[in-house]
Amino acid sequence: MRQLKLIVLFVIFCNQSIVFAQQPADFVNPFIGTSNYGATFPGPIAPRGMASISPFNVAGAPNKLEKDSQWLSNPYVHENTFLTGFSQVNLSGVGCPELGVILLMPTTGNLETNHLRYGSTYTNEVAKAGYYSTQIDKYNVKGEFTASKRVGVSKFTFPKGQANVLLNLGLGLTNEQGAMVQVVSSTEIQGMRSVGTFCYNSPEAAYPVYFVAKFSKPADRFGVWKKPDTYKGVEAQWMPYNGKNRMMEQSTKMVVGDSIGSYFSYNFEKTETVEVKIGVSYVSIENARENLEKETGNKSFDAVYKETYNEWNELLSKIKVEGGTRDDKTVFYTALYHTLIHPNTLNDFNGEYPEIKTGKIAKTDGTRYTVFSLWDTYRNVHQLMSLAYPKQQSDMVKSMLDMYDENGWLPKWELNSTETFTMVGDPASIVIADTYLKGIRDFDVQKAYQAMLKSADQIENNPLRPGLKDYIEKGFVTTENGGSVSTTQEYNAADNAIALLANELGKKDDFKRFKNRSLSYRKLFDKNYKLLRPRVKDGSLYEPFDPNAGANFTENVGFIEGNAWQYAFMIPHDIIGLKKLMGGDKGFTNQLQNIFDTNQFDMANEPDIAYPYLFNYVKGEEWRSQKLVEELVRKHFKNTPAGIPGNDDTGTMSAWVVYSMMGFYPIAPGEPKYTITKPLFDKITIQLDSKYYKKSELVIEKETNSNGKIKQIEVDGKTHKEYFIDHSDLVNAKTLKISLE
Amino acid sequence: MRQLKLIVLFVIFCNQSIVFAQQPADFVNPFIGTSNYGATFPGPIAPRGMASISPFNVAGAPNKLEKDSQWLSNPYVHENTFLTGFSQVNLSGVGCPELGVILLMPTTGNLETNHLRYGSTYTNEVAKAGYYSTQIDKYNVKGEFTASKRVGVSKFTFPKGQANVLLNLGLGLTNEQGAMVQVVSSTEIQGMRSVGTFCYNSPEAAYPVYFVAKFSKPADRFGVWKKPDTYKGVEAQWMPYNGKNRMMEQSTKMVVGDSIGSYFSYNFEKTETVEVKIGVSYVSIENARENLEKETGNKSFDAVYKETYNEWNELLSKIKVEGGTRDDKTVFYTALYHTLIHPNTLNDFNGEYPEIKTGKIAKTDGTRYTVFSLWDTYRNVHQLMSLAYPKQQSDMVKSMLDMYDENGWLPKWELNSTETFTMVGDPASIVIADTYLKGIRDFDVQKAYQAMLKSADQIENNPLRPGLKDYIEKGFVTTENGGSVSTTQEYNAADNAIALLANELGKKDDFKRFKNRSLSYRKLFDKNYKLLRPRVKDGSLYEPFDPNAGANFTENVGFIEGNAWQYAFMIPHDIIGLKKLMGGDKGFTNQLQNIFDTNQFDMANEPDIAYPYLFNYVKGEEWRSQKLVEELVRKHFKNTPAGIPGNDDTGTMSAWVVYSMMGFYPIAPGEPKYTITKPLFDKITIQLDSKYYKKSELVIEKETNSNGKIKQIEVDGKTHKEYFIDHSDLVNAKTLKISLE
Repeated sequence: MRQLKLIVLFVIFCNQSIVFAQQPADFVNPFIGTSNYGATFPGPIAPRGMASISPFNVAGAPNKLEKDSQWLSNPYVHENTFLTGFSQVNLSGVGCPELGVILLMPTTGNLETNHLRYGSTYTNEVAKAGYYSTQIDKYNVKGEFTASKRVGVSKFTFPKGQANVLLNLGLGLTNEQGAMVQVVSSTEIQGMRSVGTFCYNSPEAAYPVYFVAKFSKPADRFGVWKKPDTYKGVEAQWMPYNGKNRMMEQSTKMVVGDSIGSYFSYNFEKTETVEVKIGVSYVSIENARENLEKETGNKSFDAVYKETYNEWNELLSKIKVEGGTRDDKTVFYTALYHTLIHPNTLNDFNGEYPEIKTGKIAKTDGTRYTVFSLWDTYRNVHQLMSLAYPKQQSDMVKSMLDMYDENGWLPKWELNSTETFTMVGDPASIVIADTYLKGIRDFDVQKAYQAMLKSADQIENNPLRPGLKDYIEKGFVTTENGGSVSTTQEYNAADNAIALLANELGKKDDFKRFKNRSLSYRKLFDKNYKLLRPRVKDGSLYEPFDPNAGANFTENVGFIEGNAWQYAFMIPHDIIGLKKLMGGDKGFTNQLQNIFDTNQFDMANEPDIAYPYLFNYVKGEEWRSQKLVEELVRKHFKNTPAGIPGNDDTGTMSAWVVYSMMGFYPIAPGEPKYTITKPLFDKITIQLDSKYYKKSELVIEKETNSNGKIKQIEVDGKTHKEYFIDHSDLVNAKTLKISLE
Repeated sequence: MRQLKLIVLFVIFCNQSIVFAQQPADFVNPFIGTSNYGATFPGPIAPRGMASISPFNVAGAPNKLEKDSQWLSNPYVHENTFLTGFSQVNLSGVGCPELGVILLMPTTGNLETNHLRYGSTYTNEVAKAGYYSTQIDKYNVKGEFTASKRVGVSKFTFPKGQANVLLNLGLGLTNEQGAMVQVVSSTEIQGMRSVGTFCYNSPEAAYPVYFVAKFSKPADRFGVWKKPDTYKGVEAQWMPYNGKNRMMEQSTKMVVGDSIGSYFSYNFEKTETVEVKIGVSYVSIENARENLEKETGNKSFDAVYKETYNEWNELLSKIKVEGGTRDDKTVFYTALYHTLIHPNTLNDFNGEYPEIKTGKIAKTDGTRYTVFSLWDTYRNVHQLMSLAYPKQQSDMVKSMLDMYDENGWLPKWELNSTETFTMVGDPASIVIADTYLKGIRDFDVQKAYQAMLKSADQIENNPLRPGLKDYIEKGFVTTENGGSVSTTQEYNAADNAIALLANELGKKDDFKRFKNRSLSYRKLFDKNYKLLRPRVKDGSLYEPFDPNAGANFTENVGFIEGNAWQYAFMIPHDIIGLKKLMGGDKGFTNQLQNIFDTNQFDMANEPDIAYPYLFNYVKGEEWRSQKLVEELVRKHFKNTPAGIPGNDDTGTMSAWVVYSMMGFYPIAPGEPKYTITKPLFDKITIQLDSKYYKKSELVIEKETNSNGKIKQIEVDGKTHKEYFIDHSDLVNAKTLKISLE
């Protein structure tokens, strides 16, 4: 009987394990996107966390992709092998090298501070939501990592003997140099690292990230190293230390320099663990310390991990998917996870944050968000937030409006309170209009509207809309400005959003004016090519014109990050008009299909990512969208490190697959509507926030015996004849039922 | 009648001017020592000030002596012409490049931050105690400068137009790199600069100097510049700004780097002045700010200058000289001024200072002194302090004992709480014994004695006395250690001082032991040469031996900064014994005179600076000392920039001439006695500190009709038959009268 009881208990235990394993957070695989230039990182981060930890394996010749020998925008590459530390602030899915600094590295034996010499291979990587661990081969040290919102927590298990924890402030992914460090005591280090110059732009906007590192065990020895310039000439003769690392043992002095670091050393008589908590702040060392203490205080590694895991699980559980394979769920929840990293928290625990541009310290009662890669995210990320996390989306809009207050302008590509001016267009208007029109209205819409008008109408000294004078006068940006066609299309989209908001706010004149402006892309339409073409200053067509030029990010007159094919259909607000230009349904369909047939479609970049859905605009051709979307999901999104088609673009690729797997997509950014395709799960339940929505949840059901095309769409049991649905209809529905043939 | 009154008033005014002009402080000419490698600087400093301002003219090719193209230890060279700023912390009369950082520079017109381009010639230099001014040609800007103890005050008079004040934290005399800067507001900048690696030693002991700069007028524009490394390889292609200065306009962010600076710009519609107060601290920015506020608060430039002038005048007035030319007085008071610069104050206004070696912050109720160039100053500077400024000397000894408490060792060449280990010997013992034996006893002599014994007896891990094992076992340091003969002589001198103190403390055994040790130089005496010679590890003489080798600071086995001649007589405590070795009075006199006759005597370095006085040890030959000393004073010490024979060695050369002009000299450091020579003034009145001395003043009178040799010495009217006088006899005398033939 006794044995039977044990068996019963074992069965119960196994069942419970399985129950745990089925939580949404358990389907997160942070390795997805760490290859194929996905630019995600596998280390831990809390939802929208300021701090994060990434294994850093992009420095040093043993690595296949090395940060200094090519353009590399991520601290970790899955196929690399040479680890030189664990960076404490990181960006996920961006296109330029930035952050990836404050590198913690455990070593053993004699102290070595040159990363090319102390670097190591590693094995047994484990990555989960809020957790990463690996074995560092050279030192036989296990590293485990978790993070709260503003604190990274590292736990190193050292073998007997001399153990060292290095804090390297020289090495980093950023192009910016310079750091300050000071050992406060045998358990604490404080300092700052300069970062900035994102995309090699605006080096003058470099800014500090401050940190405080607390160690669970007092160091037996500590110190600072500094590697100054190598002197030449007569001085070199007098310097026995010329070009060498200077070791400042037991120093508690403030040290600054481009290549500096600090170390703690231990003499362990048996296997021992050291936990290192690193609080960060963009305001001050004091705030970094407060962040650390208030968030993690005396909490154990496991306690911090559990809290962060629970936070992830709660957020990811807002969307429950049923059916599908384990890999489907992993792709889905990892993508959703990737949409919940950026925009991230900028403010400290006490609410302080640096204002945009000036860096003046301000304070918020809520959350100040940062990392707005709006050229990417205006297309689908914010739409996903508005649906499933409307409070977050509302706070993001408020942060954007605060930037306008601080800076006089809405953000374009904002990064830690610097405006990087990366990419083109004026996407903030689209995001804000989209949010408002979806009924998320707890922000100052009048201010938002004024801000939009300013960037849309101010011709002189307008940092957001270069080429605006031509655009207003001629209807298009001319080739005097880079990416003139792309930019015209972006301005059209923004103007359409302004028009829609004007309409909602009862500003009829503005509505007409901006609606009119939003259609000016038509002046670039070339009937022969059925493509948009750049025009020069005098209005004539730019010659020569090669529609295929500009693929794969090569430079191309008229287009940014794409060619004429990849931009031809990027008129989300006027597909009806575009159809006419292209010769009606047939011409439109042929031209669109041609792009896919000739491999001009690029899944990995934003301009054409809505293309697969555009067949929905042609009655009877919707099956093409259903087929294409499913094929693209299956082809490009996988439960592997290369499982994102390219750069995740702060969650934009991920939001695409989240929507696509749910069976609908925000086809026209700024307009509160979706287009419908085939869900890839049997059932999707989206919890709705009662503060913004009447219904508590939305259920999407797929009814199917085969995997054919859509036979019928029903909303709360009533047949829905279109492949489009308004946002309000969707969120007020109980069930969206999609039946397949 | 009215006109007559004016004339009377004018006469009175003129008389008063003359009275003012006769104050001791008015005889200070800070240009003395700014040429001929004297290494003094002409800018303002308060007595023993932490802050000072020097025009900085040693960077850039237009200068004759350029800091990077030769060994140069001073921020200013009189014959140079190209000014690149005004450094806010400086050392006076040292042999290695250090400090000379935080460079303030006024410019006009468009902002230029490259010192090679913004540098200028200058004219109309005026230098006085506590004041310096010059006209900066390129910009037609007048710069005036004064300083309180911890604050430099600069006043710039700008013409109409754009005016800029640059604060360059990259350029500097020090070999250390790295700085941090942050604009706090339109009237304030704060930051730090790394300094250290004195004499290219101990780079790991680098340390920060913090500052806060307050401007009298708010800047119209401000900013920070930063010049990062020049990148090579692929990254260089992506950086349009590669290798260029980055201008961070209106930035209030913390910036760090090796080549950074900050600027304030103004648009002046008429001639305007800007005053800049820069408080410094070796503890923190907060302390730098407090130093600034507590010392200079809202005081005007003129008020600060007046206070500093008065401080100088009060101190210099402790010794009043009468007779002599204006140049004689200028040489004398400038030399006395130079002895009152170092050691200088290290502690902040609130008493805080960094402890030696650890940098831990400690607090003093009194003054913590720093910059102890003891190998130089043990010979005469501290003896001068004990006589005229005994409270300061007592505090210096207390600082040395605090260092022992903090560090476990007395200082050797202490600089801003780093031990630079420059030069040889163990001079702290001599300074402390000398002080105690002169009756200055308000310090813990038992602790001092223990500290001396530690460095004298601890064979292993003794940083102060390398070669001690051989020295104790064999009686001499062997050639395994550099400068073995010199070092043996220095240890002998230190041991003699310990013996004398042991005797005074009633420690008879120690007295005998150390007295015996102090005579061990005799084992290096070579009868053939009548010189000291180095010995190798097995005790045999080092070969080859060239007594002339090693002059002019060239390297020489056995001797440090000198040759066998320049060390042969450096046995101040055993001249009687040395005379015997040299064959009695005659042999001694011949050998000594030979040194002068063959130009082996070097007035510009310490080992032989007591030689001119040594003829006093031979009855009947004292006239030689009188003649020589007067000749040397006249030849080497002049009211010109080249008016110090070489490096002032933090006042050691100056103390030599102060004593020599007064007619007596502390011939045997550690022993409370002086030897007498001919005063160069008619009357010298030394005020004595009633806390330490019974009499309130000592008067030295010269009675002469000719300028012959000394005929008679009288102490309080009684004939004094020796050319030596005990310290107690001197300070208890009312008058020392010296009559010439």
